[in-house]
Amino acid sequence: MSSTGITAPAGFTAAGITAGIKPSGNPDMALVVNNGPEFHAAAVFTRNRVVASPVKLSREAVSDGQIRAVVFNAGNANACNGTQGDLDAAEMQQRTAELLGLESGDVGVCSTGLIGELMPMDKIRAGLEQLVPALGDNGTLAAQAIMTTDLVKKETVVQAEGWSLGGMAKGVGMISPSLATLLSCFTTDAVATPEMLDTALRAASKQTFDTLDVDGSTSTNDTVFLLASGASGISPSQEELNAAVLEASLDLTRQLQADAEGVTKRVVVTVEGTSTDEQALDAARTLARDNLFKCAMFGSDPNWGRVLAAVGMADADMDPEHISVYFNEQPVCIDTTGAPGAREVDLSGADIDVRVHLGVDGPGRATVRTTDLSHDYVHINSAYSS
Amino acid sequence: MSSTGITAPAGFTAAGITAGIKPSGNPDMALVVNNGPEFHAAAVFTRNRVVASPVKLSREAVSDGQIRAVVFNAGNANACNGTQGDLDAAEMQQRTAELLGLESGDVGVCSTGLIGELMPMDKIRAGLEQLVPALGDNGTLAAQAIMTTDLVKKETVVQAEGWSLGGMAKGVGMISPSLATLLSCFTTDAVATPEMLDTALRAASKQTFDTLDVDGSTSTNDTVFLLASGASGISPSQEELNAAVLEASLDLTRQLQADAEGVTKRVVVTVEGTSTDEQALDAARTLARDNLFKCAMFGSDPNWGRVLAAVGMADADMDPEHISVYFNEQPVCIDTTGAPGAREVDLSGADIDVRVHLGVDGPGRATVRTTDLSHDYVHINSAYSS
Repeated sequence: MSSTGITAPAGFTAAGITAGIKPSGNPDMALVVNNGPEFHAAAVFTRNRVVASPVKLSREAVSDGQIRAVVFNAGNANACNGTQGDLDAAEMQQRTAELLGLESGDVGVCSTGLIGELMPMDKIRAGLEQLVPALGDNGTLAAQAIMTTDLVKKETVVQAEGWSLGGMAKGVGMISPSLATLLSCFTTDAVATPEMLDTALRAASKQTFDTLDVDGSTSTNDTVFLLASGASGISPSQEELNAAVLEASLDLTRQLQADAEGVTKRVVVTVEGTSTDEQALDAARTLARDNLFKCAMFGSDPNWGRVLAAVGMADADMDPEHISVYFNEQPVCIDTTGAPGAREVDLSGADIDVRVHLGVDGPGRATVRTTDLSHDYVHINSAYSS
Repeated sequence: MSSTGITAPAGFTAAGITAGIKPSGNPDMALVVNNGPEFHAAAVFTRNRVVASPVKLSREAVSDGQIRAVVFNAGNANACNGTQGDLDAAEMQQRTAELLGLESGDVGVCSTGLIGELMPMDKIRAGLEQLVPALGDNGTLAAQAIMTTDLVKKETVVQAEGWSLGGMAKGVGMISPSLATLLSCFTTDAVATPEMLDTALRAASKQTFDTLDVDGSTSTNDTVFLLASGASGISPSQEELNAAVLEASLDLTRQLQADAEGVTKRVVVTVEGTSTDEQALDAARTLARDNLFKCAMFGSDPNWGRVLAAVGMADADMDPEHISVYFNEQPVCIDTTGAPGAREVDLSGADIDVRVHLGVDGPGRATVRTTDLSHDYVHINSAYSS
């Protein structure tokens, strides 16, 4: 019960091992097992229409609201591998089930890494044999094993009244609105129906993972699982469950943002003064994805003109003559005109807060988290087939 | 008649001078005058809702189908400067008209440079005094004076039967679908009504400037003028006019792409195998804007998985299991699965052709021109307030 991450809640064991999939020799396979007494689960997946083979399998597996184990590998996404990819994912699922004495449909599968390379199934098979005997209080090992270009592992634990929620995540690039996570798994010992879990997970994702936009690119493999063992015997209300999942999701989202590829600035963009939250979100995402704005943030440059140029293209109600912009709560543009001292605002710190008011008297408001566009982002992503 | 660019067609004079707006001391003001006998004109403008003061004025000036002169400055966009910006643009227009003996409504105004700095009107006023006496066969000087971070001037001439069309353009960053040019001006000595000019310009822009996407950012100042003097006495058909404007626009678009900020690769993205041209265009733009794809191009990396991940997010009909990708006409992905030798495709050259078939039996097809995302792009755009 004093352990970290996904094995903090009662009823869960995990393992992380090195199967040799990553050329680096770092750990690259993980397993999470729900030992019950309940096996309720929910999951959300990428909105990309090109999806990896494990996503197809996991969608099907969770459709009955029950998952007993999730197997992960890093270093290969098993995406765009055709029929062989589907067969390989199915073998991972089936062999994991056999080793655990479960049915195939009880097992979720998550893969992350390079798209379009066949899975090294010899290594996967040997890795599965290692994983099952290694199961234990190993949340941290599992969190390490799902890393790709992540520099640090991401874990969280939320303690509630008599129950807890643990989580892990990986993801540093190809991070964009429709589920920003790549891979994440939550565990809880609360007693909760699959419907409650689904409600809590969708609500939290919308406010956290979905608001992180590192590079506008959406992965083929994004998956977030929420598994509930019921081992605490405590039945939280929907609101209590929502609050815990939101807190844990927000914590992991901040960790993902802080470790984004090439990040030197953590930028929080808030848009208000438009008709609806959806419009505000569109404008915030348009700004968060604008490369000129992101380069200015890298340069600590309070070039608010680029903010105006970006939001002017958004699908949001606005008054083009009455837009205001604040950097770290200092006004730099009022009524679409530069404010005194705007060019002298100090953006040298690692955290930059950007608030834009679109000039319309409406309740729309949204926040998106993004990063700067740095030399390191280009370096990392122009290296051969990362 | 043997001169270059916008003074190649009969009936036009131009000037380019140094007014001291650019810190570099390079030429920064230009003037194009149509000496008639006709003064027909058309123009297209940025689709950004935040527009610069000169765009508002020029839109109004061209609304009667007549423009006799266009004055340009580089180094300051006169955007987001509030009422003072509107007054300054109006003074530029009015003073130019006075010096040329015209009405204000005969003069178009184009500005490019930093957003949100008030125009240095002392320098502008003195520059206008210099410009008018400098008018002559100076198309090239004008093309040089409108450059910002452009490394080379962009000019074109199309010779038709007894008439000609000249053009100039500037633009290297903040280049995105809804008019990719920043500033461009065409001149022709053909006899053509404003309606014919408008038809030809809109059709050509859609196929050329609108298909260039360097960074997904859309300027507040984009303007393309087409001025017709009728001095050749030749009346081309609409088709002949369309063909000449298209040829000149395509030439300038290629020059803009080749000089894009930080460019090391010229990438042409073609999407087919979807229901409509609009859907194909959406998919092509989604790919052309994807930073991970653009970084892979910079690294000469045939990482086709990023192509799949990008187009999978497009608003286009597709068969996610039957997408094919070709790099320089070599198949790298067939039916959403890697083709033999895909990782060995040589992308080391400066021109990369990417063709994507979305797997649907439909007539949709579109081409977008883009560039790679390089260290130099980040460097140029993270320098203080470029």
